[in-house]
Amino acid sequence: MEEILELLASGKMTVREAAKLLRINAVKEIGEVARLDTGRWNRRGVPEVIFAEGKDRKYLAKLALEMVTEEGIALVSRLQAEDMMAIEDALPGEEFVCEYNERAKMAIIRKKDHEISLKGKIGIITAGTSDIRAAEEAKVVASAMGCEVLTSYDLGVAGIHRLFEPLKMMIEAEVAVVIVAAGMEGALPSVVASLVDIPVIGLPTSVGYGAGGKGLSALLSMLQSCAGGIAVVNIDNGIGAGILAGLIARKAGR
Amino acid sequence: MEEILELLASGKMTVREAAKLLRINAVKEIGEVARLDTGRWNRRGVPEVIFAEGKDRKYLAKLALEMVTEEGIALVSRLQAEDMMAIEDALPGEEFVCEYNERAKMAIIRKKDHEISLKGKIGIITAGTSDIRAAEEAKVVASAMGCEVLTSYDLGVAGIHRLFEPLKMMIEAEVAVVIVAAGMEGALPSVVASLVDIPVIGLPTSVGYGAGGKGLSALLSMLQSCAGGIAVVNIDNGIGAGILAGLIARKAGR
Amino acid sequence: MEEILELLASGKMTVREAAKLLRINAVKEIGEVARLDTGRWNRRGVPEVIFAEGKDRKYLAKLALEMVTEEGIALVSRLQAEDMMAIEDALPGEEFVCEYNERAKMAIIRKKDHEISLKGKIGIITAGTSDIRAAEEAKVVASAMGCEVLTSYDLGVAGIHRLFEPLKMMIEAEVAVVIVAAGMEGALPSVVASLVDIPVIGLPTSVGYGAGGKGLSALLSMLQSCAGGIAVVNIDNGIGAGILAGLIARKAGR
Amino acid sequence: MEEILELLASGKMTVREAAKLLRINAVKEIGEVARLDTGRWNRRGVPEVIFAEGKDRKYLAKLALEMVTEEGIALVSRLQAEDMMAIEDALPGEEFVCEYNERAKMAIIRKKDHEISLKGKIGIITAGTSDIRAAEEAKVVASAMGCEVLTSYDLGVAGIHRLFEPLKMMIEAEVAVVIVAAGMEGALPSVVASLVDIPVIGLPTSVGYGAGGKGLSALLSMLQSCAGGIAVVNIDNGIGAGILAGLIARKAGR
Amino acid sequence: MEEILELLASGKMTVREAAKLLRINAVKEIGEVARLDTGRWNRRGVPEVIFAEGKDRKYLAKLALEMVTEEGIALVSRLQAEDMMAIEDALPGEEFVCEYNERAKMAIIRKKDHEISLKGKIGIITAGTSDIRAAEEAKVVASAMGCEVLTSYDLGVAGIHRLFEPLKMMIEAEVAVVIVAAGMEGALPSVVASLVDIPVIGLPTSVGYGAGGKGLSALLSMLQSCAGGIAVVNIDNGIGAGILAGLIARKAGR
Amino acid sequence: MEEILELLASGKMTVREAAKLLRINAVKEIGEVARLDTGRWNRRGVPEVIFAEGKDRKYLAKLALEMVTEEGIALVSRLQAEDMMAIEDALPGEEFVCEYNERAKMAIIRKKDHEISLKGKIGIITAGTSDIRAAEEAKVVASAMGCEVLTSYDLGVAGIHRLFEPLKMMIEAEVAVVIVAAGMEGALPSVVASLVDIPVIGLPTSVGYGAGGKGLSALLSMLQSCAGGIAVVNIDNGIGAGILAGLIARKAGR
Amino acid sequence: MEEILELLASGKMTVREAAKLLRINAVKEIGEVARLDTGRWNRRGVPEVIFAEGKDRKYLAKLALEMVTEEGIALVSRLQAEDMMAIEDALPGEEFVCEYNERAKMAIIRKKDHEISLKGKIGIITAGTSDIRAAEEAKVVASAMGCEVLTSYDLGVAGIHRLFEPLKMMIEAEVAVVIVAAGMEGALPSVVASLVDIPVIGLPTSVGYGAGGKGLSALLSMLQSCAGGIAVVNIDNGIGAGILAGLIARKAGR
Amino acid sequence: MEEILELLASGKMTVREAAKLLRINAVKEIGEVARLDTGRWNRRGVPEVIFAEGKDRKYLAKLALEMVTEEGIALVSRLQAEDMMAIEDALPGEEFVCEYNERAKMAIIRKKDHEISLKGKIGIITAGTSDIRAAEEAKVVASAMGCEVLTSYDLGVAGIHRLFEPLKMMIEAEVAVVIVAAGMEGALPSVVASLVDIPVIGLPTSVGYGAGGKGLSALLSMLQSCAGGIAVVNIDNGIGAGILAGLIARKAGR
Repeated sequence: MEEILELLASGKMTVREAAKLLRINAVKEIGEVARLDTGRWNRRGVPEVIFAEGKDRKYLAKLALEMVTEEGIALVSRLQAEDMMAIEDALPGEEFVCEYNERAKMAIIRKKDHEISLKGKIGIITAGTSDIRAAEEAKVVASAMGCEVLTSYDLGVAGIHRLFEPLKMMIEAEVAVVIVAAGMEGALPSVVASLVDIPVIGLPTSVGYGAGGKGLSALLSMLQSCAGGIAVVNIDNGIGAGILAGLIARKAGR
Repeated sequence: MEEILELLASGKMTVREAAKLLRINAVKEIGEVARLDTGRWNRRGVPEVIFAEGKDRKYLAKLALEMVTEEGIALVSRLQAEDMMAIEDALPGEEFVCEYNERAKMAIIRKKDHEISLKGKIGIITAGTSDIRAAEEAKVVASAMGCEVLTSYDLGVAGIHRLFEPLKMMIEAEVAVVIVAAGMEGALPSVVASLVDIPVIGLPTSVGYGAGGKGLSALLSMLQSCAGGIAVVNIDNGIGAGILAGLIARKAGR
Repeated sequence: MEEILELLASGKMTVREAAKLLRINAVKEIGEVARLDTGRWNRRGVPEVIFAEGKDRKYLAKLALEMVTEEGIALVSRLQAEDMMAIEDALPGEEFVCEYNERAKMAIIRKKDHEISLKGKIGIITAGTSDIRAAEEAKVVASAMGCEVLTSYDLGVAGIHRLFEPLKMMIEAEVAVVIVAAGMEGALPSVVASLVDIPVIGLPTSVGYGAGGKGLSALLSMLQSCAGGIAVVNIDNGIGAGILAGLIARKAGR
Repeated sequence: MEEILELLASGKMTVREAAKLLRINAVKEIGEVARLDTGRWNRRGVPEVIFAEGKDRKYLAKLALEMVTEEGIALVSRLQAEDMMAIEDALPGEEFVCEYNERAKMAIIRKKDHEISLKGKIGIITAGTSDIRAAEEAKVVASAMGCEVLTSYDLGVAGIHRLFEPLKMMIEAEVAVVIVAAGMEGALPSVVASLVDIPVIGLPTSVGYGAGGKGLSALLSMLQSCAGGIAVVNIDNGIGAGILAGLIARKAGR
Repeated sequence: MEEILELLASGKMTVREAAKLLRINAVKEIGEVARLDTGRWNRRGVPEVIFAEGKDRKYLAKLALEMVTEEGIALVSRLQAEDMMAIEDALPGEEFVCEYNERAKMAIIRKKDHEISLKGKIGIITAGTSDIRAAEEAKVVASAMGCEVLTSYDLGVAGIHRLFEPLKMMIEAEVAVVIVAAGMEGALPSVVASLVDIPVIGLPTSVGYGAGGKGLSALLSMLQSCAGGIAVVNIDNGIGAGILAGLIARKAGR
Repeated sequence: MEEILELLASGKMTVREAAKLLRINAVKEIGEVARLDTGRWNRRGVPEVIFAEGKDRKYLAKLALEMVTEEGIALVSRLQAEDMMAIEDALPGEEFVCEYNERAKMAIIRKKDHEISLKGKIGIITAGTSDIRAAEEAKVVASAMGCEVLTSYDLGVAGIHRLFEPLKMMIEAEVAVVIVAAGMEGALPSVVASLVDIPVIGLPTSVGYGAGGKGLSALLSMLQSCAGGIAVVNIDNGIGAGILAGLIARKAGR
Repeated sequence: MEEILELLASGKMTVREAAKLLRINAVKEIGEVARLDTGRWNRRGVPEVIFAEGKDRKYLAKLALEMVTEEGIALVSRLQAEDMMAIEDALPGEEFVCEYNERAKMAIIRKKDHEISLKGKIGIITAGTSDIRAAEEAKVVASAMGCEVLTSYDLGVAGIHRLFEPLKMMIEAEVAVVIVAAGMEGALPSVVASLVDIPVIGLPTSVGYGAGGKGLSALLSMLQSCAGGIAVVNIDNGIGAGILAGLIARKAGR
Repeated sequence: MEEILELLASGKMTVREAAKLLRINAVKEIGEVARLDTGRWNRRGVPEVIFAEGKDRKYLAKLALEMVTEEGIALVSRLQAEDMMAIEDALPGEEFVCEYNERAKMAIIRKKDHEISLKGKIGIITAGTSDIRAAEEAKVVASAMGCEVLTSYDLGVAGIHRLFEPLKMMIEAEVAVVIVAAGMEGALPSVVASLVDIPVIGLPTSVGYGAGGKGLSALLSMLQSCAGGIAVVNIDNGIGAGILAGLIARKAGR
């Protein structure tokens, strides 16, 4: 940089040339440091997740292979069971282990020697059975981040008494955070947050029709909740809820 | 009508004239029957409510006097205390009784000899203190329709245990319907409906800011409620909730 | 609870242990009471309704069998005729009676000895033929709750005169409540409420396209109605309207 | 134009220069024709309306004077009574006549010799008293276009029988079009359109609060109306409704 | 009615019985007058239009046959060509004439002796080719009401010069009203209204994607238009535009 | 309960009486357990926050005194400096300490002997200066829950380089969670989440005008973030963000 | 025009006839000038783009042939590969060259002798792989306008360091403008605009689900961006972005 | 970095310590490069603009002084004339020049020796007078960036002929870009873009009431425009339009 300025000062370079060179220079240096940073990205311990919807099988298999080779683990979400085959066929079986979580519609692909050390506990609760897909997404991701995951599904608001037993179990297990998935009016996270002193992640799901349907009412209810201690991820974003829960649990589990 | 058709048939009238006369005729007859109907409107026993916002004092006083003279009772909503005076001054005191419900911001004006026979019981519950204005609107209207009104305010969702005592009291009193007013996430009507077999009218209030604020989230939650047995009126529409509750209670109270 | 506090007082337990135990304890006790409450849920007399959309046939059959065994009656909504077979096949025919309401797309499954005593009357009106599915949902549910249901469909706003005969019939029958289903501009509930002193439940349906389509305009019109005495359920929510009407009619019918 | 092309052909002009000249040329010619068109604009017989809100008094007076001088008439809308004075003071009184329509909040300023020949009839109806401002705006504009205007305000939906008498009167007067102003649920235009064979212009007003309030529900209802023969202008746009009605009535009145 | 009141006065009837009878009575009388009104509905000269979408072929054929028998003409909209056959097969060919307008996706079915006398002229313009379906709907309906319809499609805003020729032709023909169909930004109706003194009906179409797509931007632009003299029907509502235009043209054509 | 059933069995009670008693009974028992629960609510360590907007000074002072007496600490939000006086005057000075956080517009009132043991660390970052009010709300609440709070305000996205220093400081301090407040496009939380492995709470603020203004775009951006590990609270809901951060930090800090 | 006025003056024509003639006259003249303008449209150098969605193959082929014959080049967007065949078959191969850009889903059809002189440089960047279709649309259009296009796809916000290298390359190449395509939270255009002094066109894409999905959040973020120097086209409107970039680059490239 | 890894390899550091150090290290390095970047930010030649709304006078004066001292120029937007004084008083008059643009509500403060070299030309057009504030904001910013700005205000769509003269003038002046400000239906940018081959920046303004009011319809129309070559900034965002235009003009002006 000094070089350029000297050339400029000595008149060997016009101002416009210098400005252009300086601009290129600055960007280049940032680029270099940023490249060093690639390693850090992996150290974050957050597995990247491949969103399968709208991608063709070959491309998915290629992406998955690249990712599992480099990071030891690859997750694929919104994946149909029949597309799973294509991915499995593309992998050299002796090196990798493939799992398919039917309820989450997710694939988990690991190098055989990939190990995840357990680092925290989270709880996941759903209001209904239709919320389970999102909940399982969260479970798969948090598990891949090394969390022990306790689940209890279909607790409903209509039958609030079904909520107490699993909540007790989660308190005893000392989970660091509870993900509560709910559609329709989305009241369950509020109820949970009013009963426990554990952070709650609201996971609205696209259940419900008519006004406020497709998760809108659930999302707004969680944002409006008068019970403190709730934060929300987007509708059906089980992946996001899982990553956040994983990060919280790891901090607590250290 | 036959007359017109005969004139037409005998060629004494053109088709266009006949059509015009017939059209006028039909509308006139409907008009006549409709006029007979005026009496029925009063018999409905639903007091009309004057919405004061945006009307000037003189006009309000005039409207109220007309209405109370004709129907024996007049209600004025969204009325500031200072505007109440104007109305009171405009009424011949020896004939009429004026009341002002500070919390509902409503005036109740009655002929001295106007009597309301008690015809049913309703309960009104609010989630917070900010919901009370709407709740009291409902109370004023239902009372004017002859209902006994039991209220219990500020029960919150955050402290769900505060809900049981008043609910028990309302069940024992055999109320025909419960109005539940709530803003923010509006979960209280769902909780109530899941605990009792009494019809619930959800009354969303414009409490809450940000996304889903001003009653939107409350309204949508009540519409999306998975607990059956809830219907909703518009945001802050205590008047509507009160009329509906009054009609239900009167049917049940007969 | 006292036990824990004594252990704490005598130093045999740390504060943190005690707090944890107390928290578990409180939740456990609530849980126990809540369990007693299971019976109450059934006594509410509101049949739970299985939402069939998106569930597979086997799972539906299993759910229905469980529910009918336990409660004597099971309702399944949004059920295609062809899926009805699967449910019927799964039931031991000699014990249960199956009905399928084509227009409501609902199944009603009863133990042969399940009896519903009649407890009230409701009326159901629709503006058009496209509103009938939602109206029939309401009818099925209210019937299962023991209500006698009077219906009159396709009365339209365009031909308002078609409305009078059925309304007269419902007044004579002394129905406790009228459900009015309408899509598009949703004006019919307002018209009905302005003519009768019977509580009106507005049931907006997802009829109509363009701005305000899919039931939005109908819903908003009912919420904005200047005729008092209307409450609304969500768009297409015939189930909710039926439950609410059933609860109202039973109160009145006692 | 040919000139330019010749210069280009003969090499006396570069392509770039020619292109630029051609472009300028084309726009200039359009401009010239367009200028001829100015006269036509006035012949349209639609008075321009000055929107007063947010403009200061001096500027308003200047605009009004210019317009009345050029076109013989000037209308000013959304004008407070106190701002009217400023305009009147700015006009040489002997030449111009000023009127202020309190209910429309509009000023009508005419040259003394400005004459409007009567060319058609329109009817205007409002559902409530709060809809009158918008209705009067329409009346002022249509009157200035030479229409005879029949009005009937505050007919309500709640008391539908009040509608028949004025409708009969308008049919007898053979109005070419009816403007129906309504807020809240906005059902009145549908009711009118189902009773008469006169074109209906729906004029939604910003009356109503909560969901669908400020005219939204009224607008959507009119757009969704199942009674054919309704078109809508924007919420509170009395000016637009008046112009359209004036154009229709003039065609019919010729 | 007097009868009832006398029975009441003489004590032969309780107040409750009398009230009930009076209520039934009033409704009955309205009903009777309303029935007289059936004839008027037909005289309105607005053909009812059967919306085919979502109805099965048999039901459509039945509806169409009933309507054409009673009113001499029947229109069916949103009808696929292949469903047209079913309708034609159901009609006794010697009595009825069937036409299918491919571009409007509408069927026009007439009794052989059904005559429509011409009563006015309207113009229809579209911005693009995708707007033609809605435009043709309007044309079919207005034609069935006896209007002569002049059309000019695909004039675009992008090539505004294409607009002048057809507008000139419509002015010369003295059309009473112009329907302007446009999607996307929906600017064409504003441009037309600024050029002519003919009433304009804006017909927004569901053309366009992204923000403001599916007709929303077109609808709002037409509502916001600063060129006076435009009213709007709902998105894609060619039927409504046609009826309104027909009513306007008939008034003018008399 | 058994008692009731025996009376029923022996015929000394009707079914209806028994059902009513059982219902009352169940609710009463739940009520009793719930009351035991009151203590737990306080143990949650989440201070309740009084929302001052729209409440009068006297009522605020009364509420605050009650709360601080019972719980040792009271927080009041959205409080104007001048209203603070009223609260301070109402408190016996020798017992209580009052603080007013000008930037958060919050009051913190403590018993003199009220102690908060430090239990965790959180970081708070804002994009601009207008986001500070919400950020400080979070700080006040988290501090009251015993958290050490590190803040760094006005880091902007426009000058992304300003972000690195404070982030480094927070990583070194091992904060358990970072709250990132941002208005307008709300991109900062995404940027932070992509750089660190600390859970991020997005706090959208109502900064920005036009489309997506008042926090809407910020909220949606945070929900849509492709960087995992973000959850959101409602627009301007610093209180909620603070409670959640406090709960997370306490878990981690144990 | 003078002619008409003279006839009017001499009484040989009525006012009404004259007005009509004048009106026709004015429109005719404008029309004539406008016709001259057709050439100008082509000179603009912006290729028209045929939107294929919803058009049938034959019609597409016809349109394309017309356009390529007249303008030398034709672009077809949203075209499936299989529909490309139909177009190619319809063209006389010896005269035209057809290309299909698979990623853009666009066809480029040129006369063999059609030449485009290079006139500027633009850069295109995408956040993810799903944004490439829109980006390639822009590339195809800008290329057809004679621009050299530099692209760099899938730079993500999550891995911001991947951004520096391509940005440096674009600065060095002195592009006149950068199109930045992004879905979900749409933050990339802001980041780019904060790093460079090149104009940025934000191209939001319909990537993302839930609240703010389908491009809404991306669009709003770009509109709300606090980094100056960004303008936006509609969601997925690669065509529009390409035209604008082409116009900017040509100006700069002169 | 290698150092840390060696310490780790030799066992002198635990993995956790190393990870933490590496993370701090990476962020530190990025921070250092970023700092070098500060200079570049200024070189961008885009003046930062202080948004005055909601900031108090003292703070504004302080911010402005800082900025003008450092960058030679400071712009303040949304500034009331009376607040301008406060800023002027705070500046040492002999060093700085203050200007206030009344129509833009902006202050421009310059060091006496601050020079801006002219680097390009832009045009600004408005549809109405209410759009001028936003237009002048753009003018102030672009001028401060060294652009010559040609303006022509109040051209309207209603009187499209007023548009040609100024457009011709701008073409002749060879402006690099035209900003077109419009509220209500926002059609003007489309019209301009269809007439010229200059890039158009649409600047929607918050003019208009009712549905689509406050700039929404204008924004959507510009996004939906079928005339290519338009990009949009947010409603009323004159600043953003000015910066973008400035960047484009400078590129072209080089």
